[in-house]
Amino acid sequence: MNIFKDPERIYLDHNATTPLSIAVREATSEWLNDWGNASSIHWTGRGPKNVLRQARKQLAQSINCHPLELIFTSGGSESNNLALKGLYFHRLFSEFAEKRNHILISAVEHPSVTQVAQFLSRMGAEVDVIPVDREGQIDLEFYESHLSEQTSIVSVMYANNETGTIFPIEKMVKMAHAVGAHFHCDAVQSLGKAVVDVKKWGVDSASFSGHKFYSLKGAGALYVKKGVALEPLIHGGAQERRRRAGTENILAIHAFGEVSKSLELVDQKAGLVRDLRNHLEARILDEMDHVKVTAKESKRLGNTSSLVLEGVDGETLLMNLDMKGVSVSTGAACSSGSPEPSPVLLAMGLSRAEAQSSLRLSLGWENTKEEIDRFVDILKEVVVRLRRISSEVKDVQ
Amino acid sequence: MNIFKDPERIYLDHNATTPLSIAVREATSEWLNDWGNASSIHWTGRGPKNVLRQARKQLAQSINCHPLELIFTSGGSESNNLALKGLYFHRLFSEFAEKRNHILISAVEHPSVTQVAQFLSRMGAEVDVIPVDREGQIDLEFYESHLSEQTSIVSVMYANNETGTIFPIEKMVKMAHAVGAHFHCDAVQSLGKAVVDVKKWGVDSASFSGHKFYSLKGAGALYVKKGVALEPLIHGGAQERRRRAGTENILAIHAFGEVSKSLELVDQKAGLVRDLRNHLEARILDEMDHVKVTAKESKRLGNTSSLVLEGVDGETLLMNLDMKGVSVSTGAACSSGSPEPSPVLLAMGLSRAEAQSSLRLSLGWENTKEEIDRFVDILKEVVVRLRRISSEVKDVQ
Repeated sequence: MNIFKDPERIYLDHNATTPLSIAVREATSEWLNDWGNASSIHWTGRGPKNVLRQARKQLAQSINCHPLELIFTSGGSESNNLALKGLYFHRLFSEFAEKRNHILISAVEHPSVTQVAQFLSRMGAEVDVIPVDREGQIDLEFYESHLSEQTSIVSVMYANNETGTIFPIEKMVKMAHAVGAHFHCDAVQSLGKAVVDVKKWGVDSASFSGHKFYSLKGAGALYVKKGVALEPLIHGGAQERRRRAGTENILAIHAFGEVSKSLELVDQKAGLVRDLRNHLEARILDEMDHVKVTAKESKRLGNTSSLVLEGVDGETLLMNLDMKGVSVSTGAACSSGSPEPSPVLLAMGLSRAEAQSSLRLSLGWENTKEEIDRFVDILKEVVVRLRRISSEVKDVQ
Repeated sequence: MNIFKDPERIYLDHNATTPLSIAVREATSEWLNDWGNASSIHWTGRGPKNVLRQARKQLAQSINCHPLELIFTSGGSESNNLALKGLYFHRLFSEFAEKRNHILISAVEHPSVTQVAQFLSRMGAEVDVIPVDREGQIDLEFYESHLSEQTSIVSVMYANNETGTIFPIEKMVKMAHAVGAHFHCDAVQSLGKAVVDVKKWGVDSASFSGHKFYSLKGAGALYVKKGVALEPLIHGGAQERRRRAGTENILAIHAFGEVSKSLELVDQKAGLVRDLRNHLEARILDEMDHVKVTAKESKRLGNTSSLVLEGVDGETLLMNLDMKGVSVSTGAACSSGSPEPSPVLLAMGLSRAEAQSSLRLSLGWENTKEEIDRFVDILKEVVVRLRRISSEVKDVQ
């Protein structure tokens, strides 16, 4: 897969969104021939219906599930909302399903999980939050002691979007299943970064997003294990086997299906990215003072590096790097512009000062060693300058 | 606005979806330069943020509201779900808002309203359904007698998607406001078909969809009057002023903004389409036997014609027309494939046989008189043949 690249810039923010696959970019105009409504039974509906079927098959194959176990959504946030609310409401209404009322999530979930848990808590659900340690790893003792026959849903992400920490999903799934709870996994940060196998993981549902893997925005997916019933989040027409109403975004789904084919390369590609990331961290730790890598000892995604650069404000650093053509993030992009330090880093026990001095680097398949080396040179120069300014300001005060 | 057209075919199903504006189609590749996440504060976020701002301004201007009164969604179904559930849940939780529990909808709403009402009814809401008459017009006496200080939300569409019947929204809004109820309007079938002015209508919220007006699938909007609070449907990030989480579909929003500019032509264009539709109906009623136009005496959208062709099965007719290159619909596209006759037509008092012999024609800005005449010729030929076959079958039986 060839990926768009601006030769003047270095993009290191792939956990926020990715540049586009060039194949997707070039095919988009042609794909617009399928502008029809997939529900139409005349000619304009046939192309879109076929695109839907193919894309579903391709994505299903890539993550090892049956095509009918996939629901296309508008993105990762909708997928997480559909899973958690859909299950909760279904169980609330169903005479047959057990009326369990307890939800367990980790302390470092994405806002599209934490905010849903807060909403359901206002609806009457009992929500417990599993703490994580300084390495971002989940407190399995807390988890075990809070799982019970009352637990309806457990929601723990595959890997954290800010630090890359990978959670022991397979083990946690077994523990949830032992008490009959549903295990939902926000796997939005997994595609292209790790081998995804929902059957091996054993999860009951999992969220994915196309635009985190070189595809268009506007299409995500929710895997729901056969036999698991849920209430739609968007009620209405009979699309997606009555699980998600609304005219399908065929263009974005087409693109999602297309990029899915490249997931067969993930093992090799993610390995190369990991080598680059390790090279990046090695140079930084070797050549810079007062820098720490958060969750360094943890099992992590190979593409993510979360740094604490003492004495530097993350946001100022980001803007200075941006002026040099480098794109990075200080936390989850969806909370950018917020003056509050990252809740994920605080949950891991970092101080406010550490969180505010943090930088997230997330690499992609198209990054090169030359770029990484150029980036480290720029970072060093910028950090030295910012620290000097900061100490001069202190001297004046 | 130039609109895509296949010279070999006649597309008369614009209420299901529309072909694309050629300007949108041609600009799509270039617009993909804005592939960034609009929440990112580095360079890749700036283009998308600007697209969002411009599109919001353009659409707001076209429907006469303030840009910040618009929430971009994935489409019309999501907009309706967000409005109804968002209001209902907000009022359920709010200590300040009055705890009203009554919802009133019309009998001919889109499934994305009726199914939500059913869901909320299972959540404890009291739902009343306002009947319509044979012309599709709302029973205002029923409406008046069921409106009360307990009524929380009224949801009535601007115009029906199957028959084109236009409802007396302005009058109904005043009646709802007299008891302090919120008035939501599903206006998905209004863009390009009628002058839209949400302030003149007086509605408190209204749903729109880009792909019903020559734009891409994947972007809709919900107008929410300033001061009206609602719970998000998709919880998570802070996008859309915390009313709709998830990375924005910048491409589809860009297109939606672009086509909005053409809405200034709606008066003239809709007039031309109405003339064509009237010509179509005049020829059909003049040249064919046993054909009725449903809701003919009602105030209707100028682009829609709902026919009952006695002795012909609608689905068979649709497929025969499709073979001749003509695209029409038998009911709402989202329920296509379902063997059940249209609930809208049944609610209007048509018999099952009439509903099953119905055909929906919905014209667009790009249709020509030549096409309409060619279509009528084809329709006459096909209907004669189908009726002959049907009577031969009866003779054999």
